[in-house]
Amino acid sequence: MTKLVLIRHGESLWNLQNRFTGWTDVDLTDKGREEAREAARLLKEGGFDFDVAYTSVLKRAIRTLWILLDNMDRMWLPVHRSYRLNERHYGSLQGLDKTEMVEKFGEEQVKIWRRSYATPPPPLTADDERHPSRDPRYAGLRPEDLPLSEALKDTVARFLPYWHETIAPSIKEGKRVLIVAHGNSLRALIKYLDGISDEAIVGLNIPTGVPLVYELDENLKPQKNYYLGDQEAARQKAEAVANQTQKR
Amino acid sequence: MTKLVLIRHGESLWNLQNRFTGWTDVDLTDKGREEAREAARLLKEGGFDFDVAYTSVLKRAIRTLWILLDNMDRMWLPVHRSYRLNERHYGSLQGLDKTEMVEKFGEEQVKIWRRSYATPPPPLTADDERHPSRDPRYAGLRPEDLPLSEALKDTVARFLPYWHETIAPSIKEGKRVLIVAHGNSLRALIKYLDGISDEAIVGLNIPTGVPLVYELDENLKPQKNYYLGDQEAARQKAEAVANQTQKR
Repeated sequence: MTKLVLIRHGESLWNLQNRFTGWTDVDLTDKGREEAREAARLLKEGGFDFDVAYTSVLKRAIRTLWILLDNMDRMWLPVHRSYRLNERHYGSLQGLDKTEMVEKFGEEQVKIWRRSYATPPPPLTADDERHPSRDPRYAGLRPEDLPLSEALKDTVARFLPYWHETIAPSIKEGKRVLIVAHGNSLRALIKYLDGISDEAIVGLNIPTGVPLVYELDENLKPQKNYYLGDQEAARQKAEAVANQTQKR
Repeated sequence: MTKLVLIRHGESLWNLQNRFTGWTDVDLTDKGREEAREAARLLKEGGFDFDVAYTSVLKRAIRTLWILLDNMDRMWLPVHRSYRLNERHYGSLQGLDKTEMVEKFGEEQVKIWRRSYATPPPPLTADDERHPSRDPRYAGLRPEDLPLSEALKDTVARFLPYWHETIAPSIKEGKRVLIVAHGNSLRALIKYLDGISDEAIVGLNIPTGVPLVYELDENLKPQKNYYLGDQEAARQKAEAVANQTQKR
């Protein structure tokens, strides 16, 4: 039996402002940093330790990881960053205030874009300054690997090769793995691990900054999973995420 | 022509206290963090950018790198940590105050241990709690690769395989490389690059937190090298390092 720990990055500035973030490289708030420190405390209290960490190329995840490593005195751990762990790409919705979106397109349309499994939001156009080909962190990627908008289905398709080719083999080698990522890249993993349906996965909400432990057997089949710390608080945080698009 | 940038970590707590550090995992001082921010400023001002960073498994180097990456908005860069970039291992001198050492063994003996090319200080014994086999970050290494004390010659022998097998190939692939390391692992590299003699290398001092640029031709032969920023200040900082074992 091995334990895999998943952590969604702490609160970001745009979480706070209720804006679609996606691949926009927004930093943590002070509360987000505090969430990361609290996650480190819970992990230490639970006797957790790691051999390797995986994260995205977005600073809200990397900073969450840095705070964790610093507070666990594990700054020396190998860290692998991949765009395959990035948040879902929200296309031309990125940067827009979620409440404004609801006013403009209607709550139902926004809910579909955010929460339907297979319907992507309107894509970025080639001349958009947010086009990922303009960002040096994606310079090594093939144009066809750069999303201009993603449904959750697309995020799953982007993430899974990295799981199969990189993360899963390291777990099978006996490495204790920590993944610090985003709401939708973690949904992609949980969907795969737990065999959750396309319909059900969009309703699964993951609280920010709370360690989620998966106990896996030798075939990486989940035996159980649980949040560290106060279960009721984790549930309430997940619900708060779900309610983010409600009109204020 | 390619540019390779070397940075010695900023001032650490034990630099300040004048104690032999070696593989002890001492953190930066506030001044050391400020040095790292200043290095980032100089690199940005000089138009430098990187594709990959290499550092040691010691937090004073990793934190210096983190501050650099953060201030250059390059947190997403791939980072490779290796014990082969660690500071020289000072054996049983680690943790001792340099001035006390001078009083105990005499200035000449301390100078020999610190500065002779081939004479290592007294080694750690197997029962010493500082023995690297007790530290989880070295758990994957073979016992024969764990130094119990090093002369600079031994640090060179530890570092060079990493240069040849990992760093040099990535430069030849066209990657822009940043190395954040330690006084003696950087001496090892500079000795190799510039073909400095065993006698002369021990007198070469590298200031903390100042970017040192090497311009290399396609065979990685240095064409020129220079510190960024105020040259006189860099020279004075290097001299201050050289005088650290002088009696106060």
